[in-house]
Amino acid sequence: MPAKPTGTTTRRADAQRSIAAIVDAATECLSRDPAASTSEIAKVAGVGRVTLYGHFPSRTDLIDAVFVRAIEGGEAALGQVDLTGDPRAAMSRLIESSWHLVDRFRSLLVAAQDALPPGRIRELHADPMERVERLIERGRKEGVFRTDLPTSWLVGTMHSVMHGAADEINAGRLSPDHAAEYITATVLAAFTPPGEPVPGVQR
Amino acid sequence: MPAKPTGTTTRRADAQRSIAAIVDAATECLSRDPAASTSEIAKVAGVGRVTLYGHFPSRTDLIDAVFVRAIEGGEAALGQVDLTGDPRAAMSRLIESSWHLVDRFRSLLVAAQDALPPGRIRELHADPMERVERLIERGRKEGVFRTDLPTSWLVGTMHSVMHGAADEINAGRLSPDHAAEYITATVLAAFTPPGEPVPGVQR
Repeated sequence: MPAKPTGTTTRRADAQRSIAAIVDAATECLSRDPAASTSEIAKVAGVGRVTLYGHFPSRTDLIDAVFVRAIEGGEAALGQVDLTGDPRAAMSRLIESSWHLVDRFRSLLVAAQDALPPGRIRELHADPMERVERLIERGRKEGVFRTDLPTSWLVGTMHSVMHGAADEINAGRLSPDHAAEYITATVLAAFTPPGEPVPGVQR
Repeated sequence: MPAKPTGTTTRRADAQRSIAAIVDAATECLSRDPAASTSEIAKVAGVGRVTLYGHFPSRTDLIDAVFVRAIEGGEAALGQVDLTGDPRAAMSRLIESSWHLVDRFRSLLVAAQDALPPGRIRELHADPMERVERLIERGRKEGVFRTDLPTSWLVGTMHSVMHGAADEINAGRLSPDHAAEYITATVLAAFTPPGEPVPGVQR
């Protein structure tokens, strides 16, 4: 029989519940409006502002926590993508799945770009980036991806093109329905070794 | 013989001189440190903070003004680039010159990305973007650039890859010496029509 919880463990469990409620509420509010205020988030979470600031001293800390959790959730999804076989087909599948996440968290990304210090967004993408890097390395070894540019540059190119697509959608210049296809066509062309033909778009 | 300046025109000339001094100082300070404060900028400009805030009510207003002037200066330089002849060679020249500007104003770009609302940086790039757009359109007509993706997407890709390079340098993952070459190789590959070979890097 488990020991009766002490006052301390109860308080700890309460704190964890309220942190979870705040991060849930922040995810919801920031996904609707990247400029959502902490008061609005506290209201949706059903906690007071003092409680919110007790856990997250600044709006930046809260946005960071929301972004960390979004990335972790995304990582679970991306871990399911089949990255075996033809590196180009694998890259198309990875872009498709990654794009769904970027698109879903598009408004959150705007909030993060506004609030977090430069470099932090890329830093938080370390795990998804590493997956991309491994696939690019395999494609290079198999002669399918170019080797005249460094792997880190190719990883950065995929990141820039994908986040650029989010900006294009936010600016009303791109429909979300086309994004995955355009990103894939662009990235696969950019990764093609000089002298080799650019692959056609697979629909 | 010009009329003797009245009190009003003298005051206006004084104001213009102090605005120019503030924008010069802000360009200098923000190029060294994207987080430079308005007090620091006022000091370098040799004006009081009250004068600075009289002309630029917020740090954001000042950064916007600095960015507008940087773009205008850049436009003068880009207007000199020869965009005739082979669209790929013309695009290489345009990327080379554009990159020099992005690299020179790299720290300013960080300040702008932190301070300005989303979309404003792209909005301020309207003129350079239009030049890129015209060249891409010509390349599409001549069958050198792909037509299976919209021109606006290709313009956005060049913008994303170029600004991504600035981020890579800031993060210490890329040497400024290589950037123009990498951007050119990536953009020309991304613009190549499906089925056509990716051009080799011209050194």
